[in-house]
Amino acid sequence: MLEYQAPQRDFEFLLFELFEVENHWQDIPAFAEFGDDLAKAVLAEGGRLAAEVMAPVNQSGDEEGCRWEDGAVTTPAGFKSAYQELAQGGWLGLSGNPEFEGQGMPKMLGCLLEEMFWAANTSLYLYGTLSVGTAICIDAHGSAEQRALYLPKLYSGQWSGAMGLTEPHAGTDLGIIRTKAEPVADGGYRITGTKIFITSGEHDLAENIVHLVLAKVPGAPAGSKGISLFIVPKFLPKADGSPGERNTFASGSIEHKMGIRGSATSVMNFDGAVGYLVGEENQGLPGMFTMMNYERLSVGLQGLGAGELAYQQAARYARDRLQGRSPLGPQNPEGLADSLLVHPDVRRMLLTIRTLTEAGRAFAVFVGLQLDRAKYLGDADAQALSELLTPIAKAFLSDRGFECAVLAQQVFGGHGYIREWGVEQIVRDARIAQIYEGTNGVQAQDLIGRKVLRDGGAVLGSLLDKVDVQQVPETFRDDLAAAVQQLRAVTNSVVQRCAEDPALAGSIATDYLDLVGYTLYAWIWARVAGVAPADEFGAGKQTCAAFYFGRILPRTAALTQSINAESAVVMDLPEELF
Amino acid sequence: MLEYQAPQRDFEFLLFELFEVENHWQDIPAFAEFGDDLAKAVLAEGGRLAAEVMAPVNQSGDEEGCRWEDGAVTTPAGFKSAYQELAQGGWLGLSGNPEFEGQGMPKMLGCLLEEMFWAANTSLYLYGTLSVGTAICIDAHGSAEQRALYLPKLYSGQWSGAMGLTEPHAGTDLGIIRTKAEPVADGGYRITGTKIFITSGEHDLAENIVHLVLAKVPGAPAGSKGISLFIVPKFLPKADGSPGERNTFASGSIEHKMGIRGSATSVMNFDGAVGYLVGEENQGLPGMFTMMNYERLSVGLQGLGAGELAYQQAARYARDRLQGRSPLGPQNPEGLADSLLVHPDVRRMLLTIRTLTEAGRAFAVFVGLQLDRAKYLGDADAQALSELLTPIAKAFLSDRGFECAVLAQQVFGGHGYIREWGVEQIVRDARIAQIYEGTNGVQAQDLIGRKVLRDGGAVLGSLLDKVDVQQVPETFRDDLAAAVQQLRAVTNSVVQRCAEDPALAGSIATDYLDLVGYTLYAWIWARVAGVAPADEFGAGKQTCAAFYFGRILPRTAALTQSINAESAVVMDLPEELF
Repeated sequence: MLEYQAPQRDFEFLLFELFEVENHWQDIPAFAEFGDDLAKAVLAEGGRLAAEVMAPVNQSGDEEGCRWEDGAVTTPAGFKSAYQELAQGGWLGLSGNPEFEGQGMPKMLGCLLEEMFWAANTSLYLYGTLSVGTAICIDAHGSAEQRALYLPKLYSGQWSGAMGLTEPHAGTDLGIIRTKAEPVADGGYRITGTKIFITSGEHDLAENIVHLVLAKVPGAPAGSKGISLFIVPKFLPKADGSPGERNTFASGSIEHKMGIRGSATSVMNFDGAVGYLVGEENQGLPGMFTMMNYERLSVGLQGLGAGELAYQQAARYARDRLQGRSPLGPQNPEGLADSLLVHPDVRRMLLTIRTLTEAGRAFAVFVGLQLDRAKYLGDADAQALSELLTPIAKAFLSDRGFECAVLAQQVFGGHGYIREWGVEQIVRDARIAQIYEGTNGVQAQDLIGRKVLRDGGAVLGSLLDKVDVQQVPETFRDDLAAAVQQLRAVTNSVVQRCAEDPALAGSIATDYLDLVGYTLYAWIWARVAGVAPADEFGAGKQTCAAFYFGRILPRTAALTQSINAESAVVMDLPEELF
Repeated sequence: MLEYQAPQRDFEFLLFELFEVENHWQDIPAFAEFGDDLAKAVLAEGGRLAAEVMAPVNQSGDEEGCRWEDGAVTTPAGFKSAYQELAQGGWLGLSGNPEFEGQGMPKMLGCLLEEMFWAANTSLYLYGTLSVGTAICIDAHGSAEQRALYLPKLYSGQWSGAMGLTEPHAGTDLGIIRTKAEPVADGGYRITGTKIFITSGEHDLAENIVHLVLAKVPGAPAGSKGISLFIVPKFLPKADGSPGERNTFASGSIEHKMGIRGSATSVMNFDGAVGYLVGEENQGLPGMFTMMNYERLSVGLQGLGAGELAYQQAARYARDRLQGRSPLGPQNPEGLADSLLVHPDVRRMLLTIRTLTEAGRAFAVFVGLQLDRAKYLGDADAQALSELLTPIAKAFLSDRGFECAVLAQQVFGGHGYIREWGVEQIVRDARIAQIYEGTNGVQAQDLIGRKVLRDGGAVLGSLLDKVDVQQVPETFRDDLAAAVQQLRAVTNSVVQRCAEDPALAGSIATDYLDLVGYTLYAWIWARVAGVAPADEFGAGKQTCAAFYFGRILPRTAALTQSINAESAVVMDLPEELF
């Protein structure tokens, strides 16, 4: 029952009407031959794959889950052929390096494709996104030989990727990992230790699995400065690049999870496994963060996809379900009752989902644009912006995605709680996006600590400088100006207060991230209303913008007040009284 | 791993220090012999049952779920004996009518016991709470014979109860039900139709199941004025009251649900089943609402229990888990890392759970107090207050309970997402409380429409008149006064605006309910801070009150702004554009 249709019209609106991406593509030599028609065709074909190949095995994959037996993992029925279509269609290498058989397409387009794949089948796409992240990391930090060997196989989906960070005692705090890497005579390393929560660590979708593993070499400095990064393939590549001898590590078990049950999450036991150093010893964490930053945006897109999928289910259900009468009098007098769409509270829920999701999509394209400009033009401002926006994209998009999934479930009433309709699966699947790749609390610390306090709010200020209230419809001008001014004032105050109070940043980080997110969405909605076409689609955008300003933007008032509270209200309770 | 300990200290604080219930008990002749020691003993014994009997089969019950075979339902292992202890201990008849073997204890105490039972094992307690609701309905509306026959058996748990309202096409909108009741020569009725989502409709915990079923007699008026209420027992009682012939209805299947998997939710097919009219024909809906109002408060208590259970898990995990270092410098320098409790953002989550849960508990006792005064003293003001507060209790307590469960899961990081720790089960179990017994959107409509607009806000105003800011510590005085003034102003404005705009009430109902809830919690926290003892426990309360005022009460600023938006922002989008 979980049906998905790609929102192609909105995609095209964002690219060509809101962001006028043609101008950016002309700026970037690598995209010179990239035009509207190609972009539309790529989106349409991606949408077809999502709707017709990936979505049909979404609910069945959840129902069946993965099976583990003697270290081997069987994915749900239909996953293998769907994954092959995803991989063989070149979708994993879409934004990959063309030197190594990637397709070099713009990230701003890739964001939309990722959203679709996440929406259509989160568990299935997870196998893909880990491969893409692995490729990005090897492309950035691997040797020429490593890139030549691994990238084509990862882009094609022939091999897949996984990242081994977490250990039983070490999650967020990677400085305390215990996995060891011992150098051996042949110049390689032997990896020993246990990693947990390894997404796609073991499965049956690809002929080889390339683990990127964090470990410590003998004598490494303590903490995060003593972490090295290794490629640890399930089958050691032979000289011709084909999979050879089985490496000495295996899946010890898979987790039973709340959701993403079609995705196999392994405990991986490394027992003197052969590992190949990536980059230099003790430089592993920056390498892994290349991958993490990609994954963080991608996990935000997971939340976005969940919101869109949830909206589609709830809107369809609300249209079809007849229940009660409109407060304005019967709208379907011949029928037994009116549709749920007559009820203001149902509309409130649907419009909340829709305005958060559509703004989120625009936000994601904006981040994609910065990534493209940073990567292809070496644009330092764009690079700084993408670093500022990454934790927001991860946390805000995934938090709002979960909120949207829960609201969609609520629209269904009791039918939302039973598995048949599938909407409860969206809630369960969306929940993980708030947790993995660094919890959203960690994202919030990253934003306030590394991205705002460190430069006194300069990069954020430069982003807010781009807000031109004269460019937006008059009806939103004052509210937008006030929201931006409020964020500036809060940021200035936070920068000052944090200088004097080391506990403050952490205590307000989550509220501050939300404040930035809702303020940026106001900018987006005002801009959208300004460029919306004079047709039904555009009229819908206008109404949504009014809803956002009237009903969602007020959340910033609460966040601003909450951020004004002293850290003492959070810090004063002695540990023993918790 | 889901361990539960009843918060006995907080219970006693609320009863004896905050609400000084002894005074109320002295007012009420039925409670004349009820004193502190008895109350404490009852709570302690209930707590033991919850912790030692019900909680141990909570996670296993979720894992195993219920099984359906040929119309018979098997509950999870251990449920039967735990249910027997619950029933035989007299806990179901705790506040029941002493004329029929109920124990006649105060509701303000019953609320706390219910919270414990929900917390310890939501699925298991659901079987009990439906029985209690059935008894309340029969006590209020049944004949003398019906009361004498059914009440003792329901109180003792020998028989259990269920309520048959929902049909496949009729959920919130009960006016369109199709189940028929045809009168037969013996003065009884034959019930035919299909009911869905029937909690405890079929199971193996009791020797008989008493269904209260809504149906339409021939020629009944259309809509909700033509609904009658029937007792439809699984086994027809013989003259001596023992279960006799099997009635002609059965469970057609059970639902596969997101949570409360130990609770069997049936499709019930009635095929000319024998039914006994309760009260008069066509007067069924008021009868069912007697039960619903009980169940609504109880479902709020489910949310409260979920919040407490979630807090206990998250606080324990945060204390034990070593990860990262305090922003104030290492607090556990000998250890590998500090505990999670040093992290301000973790504290923020824990304190949010705690302040919402502890205020919710006080709120529940306050509602219980009104119910006691209304029932035993015929206090009309208390009756009006309890009607005002019931939808708030149902929706606000369950919404906050879900919020708390999600926050607790977040404290666990990745460990919160796997089933092993159990915290994800709390999220899944808590979610239903926002949906059943009237979705929280329906509660919000009830509050604003029937409880506030109908009397122009008079009862709410009389409640706010009780707020005496001179009675609370000075530090909270201004903020509390401002919050109360804000709620008064919003209410006045809403009453006026709704008179002119029929769509407004529905469009702002949910935000309005939340505004009332958060404002009342501010009153509670200020009062709590005022009476908190001068010890560690009291110091904790002071800190929590400061947290609530600093970090949670600001939510009212957002709600106030959002309520100010015109209904057009919700209503303008044409149906075809959803």
